[in-house]
Amino acid sequence: MRPLQSVLGCLAALSACVAPEPEPLATEPAADGVREHASGPVYVPELLSGGLADPQAYALLSELCTRAPARLAGSDGAARAVEWARETMQRLGLENVRLEPCQVPRWERGDVEELLVVEPSAHAGERLPILALGGSVATPAGGLEAEVIAVTSFEELHARAREARGKLVLFARAMDRTRFEPFEAYGGAVNQRSSGASEAAVVGALAALVRSVTFAQDDQPHTGAMNYSEGVERIPAAAVSTNASDRVLAWLEGGERVVLRLTLACRTHEPVLSHNVVGEVVGRERPDEFVLIGAHLDAWDVGQGAHDDGAGCAHVLEAARLLLGSPRGRPRRSVRCVLFMNEENGLRGAQAYRDAHREELERHVLAIESDRGGGLPLGYASDAALGALGTLATLFGGAPCARGGGADISPLAEFGVPLAGLYPNPQRYFDVHHSAHDVLAAVHPRELELGAIVLASMAWLAADLEGDWPRNPRRPARR
Amino acid sequence: MRPLQSVLGCLAALSACVAPEPEPLATEPAADGVREHASGPVYVPELLSGGLADPQAYALLSELCTRAPARLAGSDGAARAVEWARETMQRLGLENVRLEPCQVPRWERGDVEELLVVEPSAHAGERLPILALGGSVATPAGGLEAEVIAVTSFEELHARAREARGKLVLFARAMDRTRFEPFEAYGGAVNQRSSGASEAAVVGALAALVRSVTFAQDDQPHTGAMNYSEGVERIPAAAVSTNASDRVLAWLEGGERVVLRLTLACRTHEPVLSHNVVGEVVGRERPDEFVLIGAHLDAWDVGQGAHDDGAGCAHVLEAARLLLGSPRGRPRRSVRCVLFMNEENGLRGAQAYRDAHREELERHVLAIESDRGGGLPLGYASDAALGALGTLATLFGGAPCARGGGADISPLAEFGVPLAGLYPNPQRYFDVHHSAHDVLAAVHPRELELGAIVLASMAWLAADLEGDWPRNPRRPARR
Repeated sequence: MRPLQSVLGCLAALSACVAPEPEPLATEPAADGVREHASGPVYVPELLSGGLADPQAYALLSELCTRAPARLAGSDGAARAVEWARETMQRLGLENVRLEPCQVPRWERGDVEELLVVEPSAHAGERLPILALGGSVATPAGGLEAEVIAVTSFEELHARAREARGKLVLFARAMDRTRFEPFEAYGGAVNQRSSGASEAAVVGALAALVRSVTFAQDDQPHTGAMNYSEGVERIPAAAVSTNASDRVLAWLEGGERVVLRLTLACRTHEPVLSHNVVGEVVGRERPDEFVLIGAHLDAWDVGQGAHDDGAGCAHVLEAARLLLGSPRGRPRRSVRCVLFMNEENGLRGAQAYRDAHREELERHVLAIESDRGGGLPLGYASDAALGALGTLATLFGGAPCARGGGADISPLAEFGVPLAGLYPNPQRYFDVHHSAHDVLAAVHPRELELGAIVLASMAWLAADLEGDWPRNPRRPARR
Repeated sequence: MRPLQSVLGCLAALSACVAPEPEPLATEPAADGVREHASGPVYVPELLSGGLADPQAYALLSELCTRAPARLAGSDGAARAVEWARETMQRLGLENVRLEPCQVPRWERGDVEELLVVEPSAHAGERLPILALGGSVATPAGGLEAEVIAVTSFEELHARAREARGKLVLFARAMDRTRFEPFEAYGGAVNQRSSGASEAAVVGALAALVRSVTFAQDDQPHTGAMNYSEGVERIPAAAVSTNASDRVLAWLEGGERVVLRLTLACRTHEPVLSHNVVGEVVGRERPDEFVLIGAHLDAWDVGQGAHDDGAGCAHVLEAARLLLGSPRGRPRRSVRCVLFMNEENGLRGAQAYRDAHREELERHVLAIESDRGGGLPLGYASDAALGALGTLATLFGGAPCARGGGADISPLAEFGVPLAGLYPNPQRYFDVHHSAHDVLAAVHPRELELGAIVLASMAWLAADLEGDWPRNPRRPARR
């Protein structure tokens, strides 16, 4: 429970935009679920009852997952997702619906990806489950066969540089299970995926294998983006399942020589034209000021991108639908819904949005991204340095967090736009993230709907706030 | 985020029992997961790191679900569960491990339960999925065939009393999806299950059918306890799946005559001897004062009782293990772990505990039950009237809630024992509750472990609190 007096202070400050018949948050048990859930994010009552009475978020997500399960930027699936999003915004009654162009990279997995055991001879011919990392080059057609060295850090790799030469490097550091916050644990392991190949190339290795960045202990590899450093040879890179990584480690620790054959057929084509999809709920008093709510439409080419970030897309579209149907009517400012393209492997949609709307960014009073899956909403991750957003964050629950909003809205930081990110229960997210397990069935309909309602609630209150919003200091964008 | 000053006030009040190197809860982003999660329940750092480094809650739950998946009071499964719990407490190093006797009812489902469509003739012979309600009498061996009337309230039933005579009554009121709090929605529908049969018998109906009390829309029936009123004829009662209930309703609304044949072979035997299982972590200064942490060992005879209440048993046992292994050493008071028997259909273990420990209850400073499943812990449901517990509840997150602790500890209210209940994410709980879907795979290992850690944290702080605990006013027990 949040102490009552502080919450009431926040409510008083926001009195203009709280319920027509304002009710204090109760410390007593109440029949009203809004008040009873005072420890989490606050729900605008009309949006809560409207959303739970006629929930559509899961149906929207189901449509997206069915129509464009694989929708990596530049693919046919991404084009179908763009078309679906435009049609859906129009059908839901959003205004000023449009496609905004961006050039995106186009990477394809190809039809072969295989990691075969050559030694230990007792296991020769067994396949270890892999997924090429997004952006990786291919191996030669016949594959790359080499001995394996495993390391748990770049420091260890460089200390063992001579040993690594001519080998396959397995980056085997696990996500730290003792971190409460899975996003922190992810952040502590993901550099192996994003930079491992170039680090390995510097010491003369032939390819990089990366333990999947997940808490899940299973046979499912988890892909994700990687980048090559300038001026370093580009070598192939693939994620291996956590079980496979642990098997290889066990062989090495048992003193066995491990030889594997890696074959990847992925390739990068010329960039192609794609689009962000934008629509609005036009405000009643200050239509040229915006609260942006966003998510990303692209997803990896395995699974259905149901949590990452189909859930965010469903949150945004359903939030808009709830705002349009709310008996409260329109908020003062406009709520702009942006479904970004190419978050996963380029951020070109985010950059294109920033560039196309440069003149308007002074009038973006808040940007909220949903890109942490469809779990039970616990609050918002927001920039604690921002006074007004801090107030809202207090009202809505959620711990301030430097990670702030999300990748797609991160370029707006340069312009002083306050950023926030919906913060759902993160404990299950990386179990499915970037893997074939990220499918519709992994999303809980009611939790997804509650996320949409919380996003709609925050958007309504922020867009309806009386007076002017304070700005953030301008600061460099970061992902 | 909980406003900092209030939290610091609570921390100051509890300074004696907070971390050896106390750290204020941060408003700044912090590397430390404990502080970052300031909006939820607070975790004692050593218990958090210990539990996440070597989590055992899921393994414990897996043992229980494997060894005694069906463990309704009085059954062989319940006896196996008791033996497992005693062995496990001993293996984990709990002290004063013992079985405490209680007489429990023994009800068996029998080998026939069937609901067949007779009319509409187009569907004749189809089976509708059912589960007899716990405590129900059987039908005659050949079944009961009768026309069906559907009602959504007892008021409607009594208004249509003449129509209901000689029929099967379907209680078809759904859980209200527009309630944020699923336990409230459950509370608003469950009287159909607990009292429907006697209500129906009063108007001369032959049997009661009850729409399963769940948000899930599927073919899975959900059982649960029912009670017969004194002096009213005992008629059979069964839960039907939500889909089946909706089919019958649709037929009736379409003007069709609906005739069903219900056959149940369940029966109630003589009460038998069973046991609560008790063990302790003996306190270092006031070993004869107790913080009780409890859950119930019995479960329905379908599924594995994984969430209800295997999860609670795992929480309690794992919390004890963490307390015993903590580098903080023993708290001042004893933590008593009680795995109650017969919560589901009698509460005889709870009553036996109260009776056997009557002289000690003045020295039960707090009782905490975990009986809301194994989801992500969000805080505690506690009695808002209690000052000191209110302080702890504020510290640990969670909205005060009249439902307080849980059924097993409810008899202790008469003696003024402060009560609290662990409050995990409730949004998925009733999807599986009392059904064949309540199996190990429905529990997330990391969320379960976090529940155990939160319970251990609360038990540690409460048991180590310096000075005397205030008492609750004595008040009538309620379930």
